[in-house]
Amino acid sequence: MKPKKLGVWLIGALGSVSSAVILGTLALKHGLTGTTGMITATEPFEKLDLVPAEAIEFGGCDIREGSLRESIHGITQEIGGNIPADLRDLDAHLVGIEGNFVPGSARNCGDAIECLMPGVPRGDASLREEIARVIGQFDWFRKNKALDDVVVVNLASTEPPVGITSCHKNIDALEKCLDENREDSVRASTIYAYSAIESGCAYINFTPSNGALFPAMIQFAERKGVPVMGNDGKTGETLVKSALAPMFQCRNLEILSWEGFNILGNLDGRVLNCLENKESKLKTKDGVLSQLLGYDIHSRVEINYVPSLSNQKIAWDFIHFRGFLDAKMSLQFIWQGFDSLLAAPLVLDLVRLAELAMRRGEAGLMPHLACYFKAPLGVNEHRLYEQYRMLMNYVTERRPSAVQ
Amino acid sequence: MKPKKLGVWLIGALGSVSSAVILGTLALKHGLTGTTGMITATEPFEKLDLVPAEAIEFGGCDIREGSLRESIHGITQEIGGNIPADLRDLDAHLVGIEGNFVPGSARNCGDAIECLMPGVPRGDASLREEIARVIGQFDWFRKNKALDDVVVVNLASTEPPVGITSCHKNIDALEKCLDENREDSVRASTIYAYSAIESGCAYINFTPSNGALFPAMIQFAERKGVPVMGNDGKTGETLVKSALAPMFQCRNLEILSWEGFNILGNLDGRVLNCLENKESKLKTKDGVLSQLLGYDIHSRVEINYVPSLSNQKIAWDFIHFRGFLDAKMSLQFIWQGFDSLLAAPLVLDLVRLAELAMRRGEAGLMPHLACYFKAPLGVNEHRLYEQYRMLMNYVTERRPSAVQ
Amino acid sequence: MKPKKLGVWLIGALGSVSSAVILGTLALKHGLTGTTGMITATEPFEKLDLVPAEAIEFGGCDIREGSLRESIHGITQEIGGNIPADLRDLDAHLVGIEGNFVPGSARNCGDAIECLMPGVPRGDASLREEIARVIGQFDWFRKNKALDDVVVVNLASTEPPVGITSCHKNIDALEKCLDENREDSVRASTIYAYSAIESGCAYINFTPSNGALFPAMIQFAERKGVPVMGNDGKTGETLVKSALAPMFQCRNLEILSWEGFNILGNLDGRVLNCLENKESKLKTKDGVLSQLLGYDIHSRVEINYVPSLSNQKIAWDFIHFRGFLDAKMSLQFIWQGFDSLLAAPLVLDLVRLAELAMRRGEAGLMPHLACYFKAPLGVNEHRLYEQYRMLMNYVTERRPSAVQ
Amino acid sequence: MKPKKLGVWLIGALGSVSSAVILGTLALKHGLTGTTGMITATEPFEKLDLVPAEAIEFGGCDIREGSLRESIHGITQEIGGNIPADLRDLDAHLVGIEGNFVPGSARNCGDAIECLMPGVPRGDASLREEIARVIGQFDWFRKNKALDDVVVVNLASTEPPVGITSCHKNIDALEKCLDENREDSVRASTIYAYSAIESGCAYINFTPSNGALFPAMIQFAERKGVPVMGNDGKTGETLVKSALAPMFQCRNLEILSWEGFNILGNLDGRVLNCLENKESKLKTKDGVLSQLLGYDIHSRVEINYVPSLSNQKIAWDFIHFRGFLDAKMSLQFIWQGFDSLLAAPLVLDLVRLAELAMRRGEAGLMPHLACYFKAPLGVNEHRLYEQYRMLMNYVTERRPSAVQ
Repeated sequence: MKPKKLGVWLIGALGSVSSAVILGTLALKHGLTGTTGMITATEPFEKLDLVPAEAIEFGGCDIREGSLRESIHGITQEIGGNIPADLRDLDAHLVGIEGNFVPGSARNCGDAIECLMPGVPRGDASLREEIARVIGQFDWFRKNKALDDVVVVNLASTEPPVGITSCHKNIDALEKCLDENREDSVRASTIYAYSAIESGCAYINFTPSNGALFPAMIQFAERKGVPVMGNDGKTGETLVKSALAPMFQCRNLEILSWEGFNILGNLDGRVLNCLENKESKLKTKDGVLSQLLGYDIHSRVEINYVPSLSNQKIAWDFIHFRGFLDAKMSLQFIWQGFDSLLAAPLVLDLVRLAELAMRRGEAGLMPHLACYFKAPLGVNEHRLYEQYRMLMNYVTERRPSAVQ
Repeated sequence: MKPKKLGVWLIGALGSVSSAVILGTLALKHGLTGTTGMITATEPFEKLDLVPAEAIEFGGCDIREGSLRESIHGITQEIGGNIPADLRDLDAHLVGIEGNFVPGSARNCGDAIECLMPGVPRGDASLREEIARVIGQFDWFRKNKALDDVVVVNLASTEPPVGITSCHKNIDALEKCLDENREDSVRASTIYAYSAIESGCAYINFTPSNGALFPAMIQFAERKGVPVMGNDGKTGETLVKSALAPMFQCRNLEILSWEGFNILGNLDGRVLNCLENKESKLKTKDGVLSQLLGYDIHSRVEINYVPSLSNQKIAWDFIHFRGFLDAKMSLQFIWQGFDSLLAAPLVLDLVRLAELAMRRGEAGLMPHLACYFKAPLGVNEHRLYEQYRMLMNYVTERRPSAVQ
Repeated sequence: MKPKKLGVWLIGALGSVSSAVILGTLALKHGLTGTTGMITATEPFEKLDLVPAEAIEFGGCDIREGSLRESIHGITQEIGGNIPADLRDLDAHLVGIEGNFVPGSARNCGDAIECLMPGVPRGDASLREEIARVIGQFDWFRKNKALDDVVVVNLASTEPPVGITSCHKNIDALEKCLDENREDSVRASTIYAYSAIESGCAYINFTPSNGALFPAMIQFAERKGVPVMGNDGKTGETLVKSALAPMFQCRNLEILSWEGFNILGNLDGRVLNCLENKESKLKTKDGVLSQLLGYDIHSRVEINYVPSLSNQKIAWDFIHFRGFLDAKMSLQFIWQGFDSLLAAPLVLDLVRLAELAMRRGEAGLMPHLACYFKAPLGVNEHRLYEQYRMLMNYVTERRPSAVQ
Repeated sequence: MKPKKLGVWLIGALGSVSSAVILGTLALKHGLTGTTGMITATEPFEKLDLVPAEAIEFGGCDIREGSLRESIHGITQEIGGNIPADLRDLDAHLVGIEGNFVPGSARNCGDAIECLMPGVPRGDASLREEIARVIGQFDWFRKNKALDDVVVVNLASTEPPVGITSCHKNIDALEKCLDENREDSVRASTIYAYSAIESGCAYINFTPSNGALFPAMIQFAERKGVPVMGNDGKTGETLVKSALAPMFQCRNLEILSWEGFNILGNLDGRVLNCLENKESKLKTKDGVLSQLLGYDIHSRVEINYVPSLSNQKIAWDFIHFRGFLDAKMSLQFIWQGFDSLLAAPLVLDLVRLAELAMRRGEAGLMPHLACYFKAPLGVNEHRLYEQYRMLMNYVTERRPSAVQ
């Protein structure tokens, strides 16, 4: 039997998360690194026949011009000595992958993104024309690489939030709005999600952008038999939040305030530096706590752009809580991580589990993937360990049915 | 029906945890404070008919001379404005409680304790004589206060570890060693635990001292039908550890090092400042991580005495971990808490749940209380949320049987 | 010879800094506390015959209604056990001081202040009428208490910045603008500063509000022979900055970024929570670093209001710097202080040194007081230790001339 | 005129500080890096004609066998992308430098060092014979490389402290002890310092080892006309201490406790992990605070070895202080630096300034270099900014005399 070939289409293919995903996959293929950070590499997933690194082909799009090699060299520099020297000589492979990249769409994505990329063509094509163009790219990728399946992953910079209107409520309304070329209800992420589902590609929204997986789009995915999931990968500060906040509940300690302050230095930071785009991010970060705790607390999350940090993200969180006899106490934490290296293995996990869902014929939301997201669609559970249990249950229970 | 009266006998009755337990209980009785910090005050425990604050009578012993009032005034000063002014006028009640206190035993408890309390009589009574004396104290407390039951809680300063010998293996060997007055195998905590069980009192070891609940003593408790549990209340840094460490497992991130540095300022600190006694503490704190993670990591816990902190305890933990592509990242946390105010509600919880166990006729270890302890006896699970689930399961499953 | 009596008029007399100043002075008078935190209590100041606590009478104004006693009890609660019990019974003295308080002006002070105090009369008096009213208050205070001199200290909440116009350039222009009732160029702080100088009272601007000591006002002070100084007391995060930043210079290490994040819980925080008023604060805080270092760095200061912190202020600063071989390293600090207790002894210092300047006939700015301010008027030196040296030089050199 | 050639003899030539010194000098020679971190590269030093990087030749000794190239590649890996790629191809130069390295002496240096390097020959030569051997090495280096002058820098691992006896009091006593082969009063550092001075080489003790610059040795240097200075380079936590502690003095705030906790991962850490050798380090680190403040505080410094940190050093300091009205507040800092990259530019500074002192004929201690050391010999001033002023004064005042 011919081994399976899986295409992974990266929206934002020149960004740092994409670079880390590609670099990591190449390193795994060549036996140059291990699987640390990938949940699907742990024991419970062993019998699921998940797609191996060898089977993955990358394609993608980006609104920037630029070189994948440069982006990847940037990452290897930051990680420093931890990257095996051999990895620095993967240029031939990278050139091959770059051949699968096409220009992206920044349609209606806010001033920040457009001002970062002054040369990006705004495009005067209609929405339907743009969708057709994107579907054409997916088809080309699939045929050209002889792929069995394709997973589309949104790793682009955060868009400003789109106001939810009647266009987003059900699939018929959405189709009508697309026909009417209703620009104001659509973002680039809408076009990509629609095109992916139409083409039968699984779709993962790793960003907080709300223009992709609104109710109408989820309904569309259900109809087309395509699995989708989002929003916003849970990589750093929010991960710690969802692990720590339940501790206070387990001790009946009352959280009074939870202040978070993030600084980061890569392109994401530059985009978030624009207030309009930051709004999307703060929404998904902020909602977690009150949903976790079940009561309202004073909580704010700030994100500032600090260029000297490059790909590093540092978060300081101050948690003020009340204990017995009303005594006030505090817990602070400082998180120092490489954002794209935290995200990349999760992206690989999601790709592998989305392929499994496609293989199994599962359509619509994948709630068992809640632990990967800051704002998991269709899931109210925000406690990390409960979310992790949901994933373990999925893995265990489905094992028999996968055998049939 | 006459309402139940429960006696609580505090070993180390003048210490800061005991003071916080007594102050808190009085405050609850008078409606001056809430139940924040008590797990047993949350919804799942409502139908268990746990003993209310009103039903509790305190007695206890301490090797120090001193005044409960002074100790409690010290605590109210530290908590500051959070203590209602009325609480400061509870002297009449405190005088009543002090009437139930008797001199304690520091038998074989290390130079630190003996040098802190120079006037403490060493006592030349035999072990059997001392046990008889302590049993007499329990009997007197029970009769004098017309108590239905008594729970004994060890809140004394940490003792130096006792070497585990054949004396500690089974109850017959222990009885023989007591008969032979084998001083070297016995600590004050041994005498109290033995006496409590002999008297039919539930026994809780909230300290790391290993002289109380070794195998022979647990066997003794089983035979006598008395519930017991320990060791070492999980109040601060270790609590956070047991909530955070599983996060790294849920993400397949490899912990490289976990360094903890604690500073604290109360009597516990002074005793721990003595290297010999610190050994007990570090043992229970240190074991948690490797048991949590299932692999060996570089980990050290330091505890230093800093008098200016008074009742505050501050911990800095540095967690170094390895992620995807071998990148090194870190998480640090700083915990600032009032140790005795974190411990007190847990002690009240344990007292209430020990009473429930006595009522239900449960004997020996209470593994469902694992979440309260750094080194829970008979339990290999160190993850906080799993331990919490064990407690919830106990609460839920037993509810029907309690009704019968 | 009759001992000197000095009046201290506090603008914002019910605020937390004023409360701490008054409480501290009473405590000093009654021998209940020491002089920790007062620079003028150290050896070099001994021979200057500075006004003692006993000689100080307090008066003041506030736009809020409220009780000094309540405000002070709030502070003693927060400090907790560190306040001697006796201090809690100073009510008789406080009632006396409250008798010297009059309603304040919030003229043109921004929506934040007016929305905090909804009942504050806006006042339709002309600027000249309001000045006359305030001068009347100063005269009444001076006569009623038989004071030798009066120092006016601005401790009110931060106003929104006033745009500097031709009105602020010289005294003649200012007089004309006052005559023409040019509301838009005037804040409450302008009225108080003008009135103080007109009345011959020294004036200290402990706030960042720029409506008080602009060039025209300083010129006015010089003409009237009155000493003045500002702006913005250097109490916490900026104090640490001005001590730490020179370290990097002394080592030729290049600061790349300096991010500061402040959280605080008192009224100041609530006012700063309003973006318009925060602008004033961030300006004085932010300017310090680039002036200290002599080159531009990426630096931002955030201030958030966290009610549960009450009078505490917590700052996290992240300093990213570049060393040899371009290696990037970092220094972080976390400051946890009671803002008003840090400010109060500085206010007492400033009052005493302003009185000395008046006695010596010094007029206009007092640059030797630079170490007390975030944005010291007329001084380019921001390094703490150089500013301290300026104060020491003043103290030493003037000693002989004071004898003449 | 032939340009000057300066030899720098590194004791501990394969250690990480030496590697950083050599790497940095090569990078400077080839224009591949800047002078960040070198004080002598700032404006005030411009006219002193200090020796340029080009004029420096390295030699040295180490008790370990090993390769300079490997050690340097280790450093470049840790710094990661900040090292220009060209630097990684300096192997030819490094091989040349390695040709100047000779085996070192670990005479009487404690079990830690000897157990780290099991193959090190203990040497049964007499002290006089060993001195002759070392002098021979210096002579060979000087002749072989046609050097004008040589500076010897001790960068070896910390030795256990030597008990100061009559041998160390004056030069005659020392000579006698050497004649009598009094092993117990001598460490390897003694042999190197004596040999350097005897050979007319300036000597810098960058380590805390007290076996080098005791009174007799300083007297020897004065007699021989050789400049010397030490002890213990001030690179990280202590640097911050000496910048921050004066802040509390400038505000009359009372420091109650100052707890420092260091973790580091390189060979220094492994050696310090041995309690005996740690003693030397803690002594010089600990003394600074009480000398800075002029009063005793509760202070402790812990140093732990955490291998995963490699060349990084992280320090957490908790400073507890008392302010006005006895309120307790705190300042914490977290320092994260590459120890050897902080040390290396200071070593280059010291070499350049020692050469200047030799040229000027200055003998004995160089107190103007106090700012470089944790325990500056002959200097009571520990405040960083005052020490820096001493250096600036030296630079400025001597400028004219240098012209003569």
